[in-house]
Amino acid sequence: MVTIKDSVHDHITVEGVAAELLDTPPVQRLRRLKQLGTVGLVYPSANHTRFEHSLGVYHLADAALDGLGIEGAQAERLRAAAILHDVGHTPFSHNIESIIARLTGRMHDEVDDLLEEGEIARVLALHDIDPGAVADLIAGDGEFGQLVSGELDVDRMDYLVRDAHHTGVPYGTIDTGRLIRELRFVDGELVLGEGNVQTAESLLVARALMNPVVYNHHVARISKAMLRQATERLLETEEATAETLRRMDDAALRVALRSCPETAAFATRLDTRSLYKRAIWAELQDVPDELLDADHEARGEFERQIATRAGVEPDAVIIDVPDRPRMRESTSRVVVNGEVRTLGTQSTLVDALRRVQQEQWRLGVYAPEEATDAVGRAAEETLGLDLDALVVDVRKGINTTLDEF
Amino acid sequence: MVTIKDSVHDHITVEGVAAELLDTPPVQRLRRLKQLGTVGLVYPSANHTRFEHSLGVYHLADAALDGLGIEGAQAERLRAAAILHDVGHTPFSHNIESIIARLTGRMHDEVDDLLEEGEIARVLALHDIDPGAVADLIAGDGEFGQLVSGELDVDRMDYLVRDAHHTGVPYGTIDTGRLIRELRFVDGELVLGEGNVQTAESLLVARALMNPVVYNHHVARISKAMLRQATERLLETEEATAETLRRMDDAALRVALRSCPETAAFATRLDTRSLYKRAIWAELQDVPDELLDADHEARGEFERQIATRAGVEPDAVIIDVPDRPRMRESTSRVVVNGEVRTLGTQSTLVDALRRVQQEQWRLGVYAPEEATDAVGRAAEETLGLDLDALVVDVRKGINTTLDEF
Amino acid sequence: MVTIKDSVHDHITVEGVAAELLDTPPVQRLRRLKQLGTVGLVYPSANHTRFEHSLGVYHLADAALDGLGIEGAQAERLRAAAILHDVGHTPFSHNIESIIARLTGRMHDEVDDLLEEGEIARVLALHDIDPGAVADLIAGDGEFGQLVSGELDVDRMDYLVRDAHHTGVPYGTIDTGRLIRELRFVDGELVLGEGNVQTAESLLVARALMNPVVYNHHVARISKAMLRQATERLLETEEATAETLRRMDDAALRVALRSCPETAAFATRLDTRSLYKRAIWAELQDVPDELLDADHEARGEFERQIATRAGVEPDAVIIDVPDRPRMRESTSRVVVNGEVRTLGTQSTLVDALRRVQQEQWRLGVYAPEEATDAVGRAAEETLGLDLDALVVDVRKGINTTLDEF
Amino acid sequence: MVTIKDSVHDHITVEGVAAELLDTPPVQRLRRLKQLGTVGLVYPSANHTRFEHSLGVYHLADAALDGLGIEGAQAERLRAAAILHDVGHTPFSHNIESIIARLTGRMHDEVDDLLEEGEIARVLALHDIDPGAVADLIAGDGEFGQLVSGELDVDRMDYLVRDAHHTGVPYGTIDTGRLIRELRFVDGELVLGEGNVQTAESLLVARALMNPVVYNHHVARISKAMLRQATERLLETEEATAETLRRMDDAALRVALRSCPETAAFATRLDTRSLYKRAIWAELQDVPDELLDADHEARGEFERQIATRAGVEPDAVIIDVPDRPRMRESTSRVVVNGEVRTLGTQSTLVDALRRVQQEQWRLGVYAPEEATDAVGRAAEETLGLDLDALVVDVRKGINTTLDEF
Repeated sequence: MVTIKDSVHDHITVEGVAAELLDTPPVQRLRRLKQLGTVGLVYPSANHTRFEHSLGVYHLADAALDGLGIEGAQAERLRAAAILHDVGHTPFSHNIESIIARLTGRMHDEVDDLLEEGEIARVLALHDIDPGAVADLIAGDGEFGQLVSGELDVDRMDYLVRDAHHTGVPYGTIDTGRLIRELRFVDGELVLGEGNVQTAESLLVARALMNPVVYNHHVARISKAMLRQATERLLETEEATAETLRRMDDAALRVALRSCPETAAFATRLDTRSLYKRAIWAELQDVPDELLDADHEARGEFERQIATRAGVEPDAVIIDVPDRPRMRESTSRVVVNGEVRTLGTQSTLVDALRRVQQEQWRLGVYAPEEATDAVGRAAEETLGLDLDALVVDVRKGINTTLDEF
Repeated sequence: MVTIKDSVHDHITVEGVAAELLDTPPVQRLRRLKQLGTVGLVYPSANHTRFEHSLGVYHLADAALDGLGIEGAQAERLRAAAILHDVGHTPFSHNIESIIARLTGRMHDEVDDLLEEGEIARVLALHDIDPGAVADLIAGDGEFGQLVSGELDVDRMDYLVRDAHHTGVPYGTIDTGRLIRELRFVDGELVLGEGNVQTAESLLVARALMNPVVYNHHVARISKAMLRQATERLLETEEATAETLRRMDDAALRVALRSCPETAAFATRLDTRSLYKRAIWAELQDVPDELLDADHEARGEFERQIATRAGVEPDAVIIDVPDRPRMRESTSRVVVNGEVRTLGTQSTLVDALRRVQQEQWRLGVYAPEEATDAVGRAAEETLGLDLDALVVDVRKGINTTLDEF
Repeated sequence: MVTIKDSVHDHITVEGVAAELLDTPPVQRLRRLKQLGTVGLVYPSANHTRFEHSLGVYHLADAALDGLGIEGAQAERLRAAAILHDVGHTPFSHNIESIIARLTGRMHDEVDDLLEEGEIARVLALHDIDPGAVADLIAGDGEFGQLVSGELDVDRMDYLVRDAHHTGVPYGTIDTGRLIRELRFVDGELVLGEGNVQTAESLLVARALMNPVVYNHHVARISKAMLRQATERLLETEEATAETLRRMDDAALRVALRSCPETAAFATRLDTRSLYKRAIWAELQDVPDELLDADHEARGEFERQIATRAGVEPDAVIIDVPDRPRMRESTSRVVVNGEVRTLGTQSTLVDALRRVQQEQWRLGVYAPEEATDAVGRAAEETLGLDLDALVVDVRKGINTTLDEF
Repeated sequence: MVTIKDSVHDHITVEGVAAELLDTPPVQRLRRLKQLGTVGLVYPSANHTRFEHSLGVYHLADAALDGLGIEGAQAERLRAAAILHDVGHTPFSHNIESIIARLTGRMHDEVDDLLEEGEIARVLALHDIDPGAVADLIAGDGEFGQLVSGELDVDRMDYLVRDAHHTGVPYGTIDTGRLIRELRFVDGELVLGEGNVQTAESLLVARALMNPVVYNHHVARISKAMLRQATERLLETEEATAETLRRMDDAALRVALRSCPETAAFATRLDTRSLYKRAIWAELQDVPDELLDADHEARGEFERQIATRAGVEPDAVIIDVPDRPRMRESTSRVVVNGEVRTLGTQSTLVDALRRVQQEQWRLGVYAPEEATDAVGRAAEETLGLDLDALVVDVRKGINTTLDEF
């Protein structure tokens, strides 16, 4: 048993298999992965890591298990899953996850291979825990997987509060104590008990308010896109493979980008915060489906066409197309008048928040500051967009939530 | 100049006329008026007062004046208004305001008479400040009155954060620093600058989340209604008049209720938290307009009819009809693409929040626990309501946000 | 079982006998006793009550019982003691405790009579708990009484953190989580486990830093002395007895002081914060033993002599002689190298803090502002003090920790 | 002008030369230097950086300048010094500073060379600011240098609060608002105004409480010593020079240690938290002067002798001799009764805290876990120490403030 001081939950006591898993190299590696990747370039205090987040998730999971009366082997598996749920993260967390997923077929929560090797496998075996069962929980499978990855999982409860604490943006401050206390299992579904429609809504609202200000702040998006572009180039040089990259930490990737001639310029820009600027910042309804549905190759082709038309180097154009908006939490379940209902059917807010998310969606095309005009015009033509509105948006958009710093 | 430690804003420095006004008896009286009245019966830590709130409002007003570049006599008037904006409050703040307003014609922000007498008048005269001008600002009149009382006023910025701090409910945690920094005057209107639609929304969202959990928690509403009923009885005995009552503090009213035979039972109930329970808890669409539009006399008549029908004492029935929902903040103004727009036209959330407010509206009929069944049935008949739905609501309603404590 | 939101400990869950005791009138009365009495005149946010403190003490006691493995009937008695430990408090808590103690022989923690009557007796009987045993625990008697009242009790753990939270003065911010986790029983003594000399010291340091800035701030002391003087006068009029007064709440005492002609002037001064000022502020070594050892009558006689000499009304002079400094925590026990030792023998800091306390001790003589000179000179002569040093001290003393507000 | 959200001070507004300096590569590099180096291995949330600390120092310096009425060119120089005061830090901040200082003759606050080159020089020139004058301020020279580096500097005000916030250890929570407000210049000395002996003491107390629990936690010391040893080895291989190393960031040093065969084992141990353990943990009075005064070579010679005697590899022994205790804050100045005095002469606590510091001082000899017995015995003989006491200390010492995690 170890007790660890956490800046969010104060003392966290870790016991059993989780305590031993903490000491394994793959979990210790999480100390060196920033939770929010490049968001630190907007919020300088946002340097928290996947390690402290994993401790927080363990802490909340443990409290939830207590409240739900889950004990024994099932509880140990869940505690293992909580502490391990992020071992599959790439450097800079979600920032380059899509690349690795394209090349390896694995998202960060597909970790069966990682649990079957090395120290983690050894510890799990020692405790008679099946790695596959833990991997399933991490993937959100089965009744109990919902606790680790689902609409009401402890993962998002921790990250909202933790990201608020470290960025200084108060919107993520939800009432985790109440959420944990109100969790129930009804017919195999994880739900919130009677009288908690608003408790469920508060989770959505917190995310909806954090999204534009923190997670999708345009400076975070630009730097993330640059990191992604640099990582693609690195993989093309074959100095790293998707598989080695997947197991690096932030430091290793950062230094690899500096050392490789093809990516050194990007590395310097990220190190010195000499970021690209927005050449295009377009709303969802103005973006043709062809672009929304473009795969990696097609998007690369667009970038090259724009660069040629604008007369700039290929790397001077980055197209950033976020996924279409979705709102997973709208399917979270609450008990209303004795029946389990999905929040989406019960809450007037869910629809509105979904529309807000669509309104806030933006296509970004980024370029070095001196090239934004040329690239903007070239992108407009190449992608078939309407520039007037965009210029206004770029300069005065809803996402300009803090000064340009 | 005095510097005062505040649990919310840390050090608050008060200067000039405001520092002298602080020492006047009407402002010192605010130390003895709880900010949230009977909400303390639900949230035991919510014992903060109108005095510390007034200091907080002064503090934010001063920061706003700084940011807006308002100086000299106009600024001094505004600072006076900030520190004085709540001197018109009755004991237990809003809890019995409607009674006093009915009898004196004055809401808490109609204070011209209070500023023209005694120490306040003396201090204002000393600083060559016209009491009428200050009273106008407090009433929200004129360009600068918007800062003290309006959709974007510093009053609500302070109370949301302060109520969150003292209740422990995190939903009110808005970003006051950002709100203050983004205030602008455009064509005589107080607005938020470009890029702040979400900043404005966060104010609404915070209030929308605090409403059912704090301000309208059913236990707060029941105790408030009992306090109101007791106060009505006290005024009928002529042991107090609306005018003397308006200037009492919480202690004086509490003791007056204890001493008066007609109200002693209510006083004991409030002191020992032996509160009435809900006999009826009905949604807006189920309540006839006749009841919604009933004045004081008509409502009293309903109460007497229900009591007779249920075979209980007249004081054993309290009808609690909240005002129809409104959402003042929806008219707050933000600059979007260079133009001033009202939030209601700009924000997808406003409409949803307005509907939420309507859904959460409840008519309450309260009675001693042992009489709720009889009173519920009698009220159903008298008021023409549908009991089935109500019973469910009462036991499992959206407002049951904390245990019954 | 009830769950209550607390601004310090977040959710507090109260179960068993404690939950029923919460609903008794003597415990509900604690909602109306301010934790820090007149300290609110210095720190406007310090309006927290004995009720929320009692909940906090219960919460920490419950955690300590858990950690210590104490269960069953003994644990229930301790939980009852935790929730009841302050029911013996007079209005304004410690402010007038000494008067009541002189007249009734009971300090606030001598409550056997209160537990043997009314609702409390009924609830305890229902749970088969001996009121006398609970009263003993509250008085700190026996092995387990140390948890409720002793050098390492949960009482001071809660009040330090709570007073810091509500005054805004950070010095009381101790690590309650660690303190609770490190409690052990060794040979019937409550001690802190190995490696916690500093943990124990942090409790002393927190109190030592809070003392001059909060608890003994001169404005708090002056207002407390005025309240005490007024209460003495009230008791002389026989409008109240020590026994009735002991059971009043803050509101009742406040209104009683206003209503009684002999005390109305004091009441107005306290209401409007028109406080006496320091005429004398003398260090321990300068004060004759005769005064230090003076009882109530002797001190009154000194006051009258000074008033006569200064040519002022008798009530215009208040002598305020604090108890001689003591430091109870210095006997708290810690395990060092496997042996239980008292902190005083183990810690270099304890001696220093004891000396600091002596240095900070001050005799106060207070008078209306316009009479401080006359009273100061008269007191100097009457009490045989050296004025020069005092004047300097009064104007520039170590206690002047915030502006005079 | 830029406004930045900080998790400690909320909004920080940076203007003038400081805003431009923020964008220079040497200041942006501070984003990648952890404030507390390896302390994160004890407190997982302690990932804050020199960059956010520099912003905090700027913020407090700006407030202090305001309060002191310092304006114009002098103020701009001081603001530049505040934002630049840590550009001289090595990777992992103080952890390897002593190595660089030995080899380059420069401590982290000797930065005249760094200010005379590149972007910083360009920005300073643009604002007509002499780099040498700024370097002098950073070194603490002259009247105004005291604000940046001195007994009452804003540097320690920020780091105490920030380290408390991020470790979760509350002891560093000082009252920065009060400290800043009470700063005065008297005869060219920076002092705290009348009535602030305790304010000054609170700074010392905070550091004294943070020292053993955070800064000198034995796990932090062990990991720091291992990092230092590894860095020495790296420099011996000539893959890095003191000058290149001085300008690296944490990532670069970490990866360099991994890549170099001579240091890879240390790098893995640090990455996986497989740290050495204490073989010796001796008090100041038990350590011979010969060892206390040993220079780098002499200490290395001791390490080799111990390794030989114990039959282990040379790198399996690390001797960690902290500097002799000193207490710089004891010379901080306060006004007492109108005269400037040093805190040491005025405060009873200073002497006690100095003694506490001496008592807490420990010599450490560290070795791989399996070798601690052999190394401990060999070190005892080689260094002439008394083992009995040490073993007890190592297992139960005052520094064991959290579990071994």
